[in-house]
Amino acid sequence: MIAPTSPRQRRLAEFLDRVWSAGEIAACDRFVAAAYTILNDPGDPWEGQTLDPDGFRDRVRQSRAPFPDQRFDVQDWFENAHSVAVTWLWSATHQGDFPGFPATGRRLTMSGATSYRFDAEDRLTGHWQIADRLGVFRQLQAAASPGGSSN
Amino acid sequence: MIAPTSPRQRRLAEFLDRVWSAGEIAACDRFVAAAYTILNDPGDPWEGQTLDPDGFRDRVRQSRAPFPDQRFDVQDWFENAHSVAVTWLWSATHQGDFPGFPATGRRLTMSGATSYRFDAEDRLTGHWQIADRLGVFRQLQAAASPGGSSN
Repeated sequence: MIAPTSPRQRRLAEFLDRVWSAGEIAACDRFVAAAYTILNDPGDPWEGQTLDPDGFRDRVRQSRAPFPDQRFDVQDWFENAHSVAVTWLWSATHQGDFPGFPATGRRLTMSGATSYRFDAEDRLTGHWQIADRLGVFRQLQAAASPGGSSN
Repeated sequence: MIAPTSPRQRRLAEFLDRVWSAGEIAACDRFVAAAYTILNDPGDPWEGQTLDPDGFRDRVRQSRAPFPDQRFDVQDWFENAHSVAVTWLWSATHQGDFPGFPATGRRLTMSGATSYRFDAEDRLTGHWQIADRLGVFRQLQAAASPGGSSN
């Protein structure tokens, strides 16, 4: 992971490592505002919703369930007055069922970019995200097809 | 489009408007370095390649051919020492054939995020991009299926 270079970037790095990579659900309240909005995230079941802290924890739990060893590795950091944006690579082992795809045990990778919005207290109030979901579906389809081997 | 707020952002805004939205191929040389690398762009036929000026113009021509009225509307601007990143919405009418999808005449939309890298002369040396290609395929499949109507 490329090192973050500002307080908000360091805070976001800690959030990504502890909550999304390590699954430390109890840490959510340190980082996330009382209302968190998924502004744009095509293919994400929560897109368009505003979540309270319970809803946010549920989202993390459900999202991580098929991929308990997932990791987000930041490729680059960007910032403006209200947000920090990251480009990232994701990798995980497909250990649990995913809608349409029973667990395959395969190693999966995906790239994406996310902009995280901060409030005046540097808590996260939402994100705008794009992930290469088409690439993941192709990896899952290759793993499910007879003789499929992309690993 | 949200207004850009730095010289590099203004330069990128002009590049996106003139080259990618308006298709002003002759303007490429004003913005693009002698070598331009597509660092990450899953689903893009040029991913991983380094293009010279002729190659870059070919890429713009071929990419725009099915979507001659395409527009990129920047949603937010981000910057660091070497790059400017944008989140964007794309819209276009599907007027020409696209691999696997003959022209449908349908209106398509897509969201994405791109980081553009600049050299010391503020010319573009490459990009790292994610676009919601899965969403576009779903729109095209809906348009192609009997009774399909998502417009």
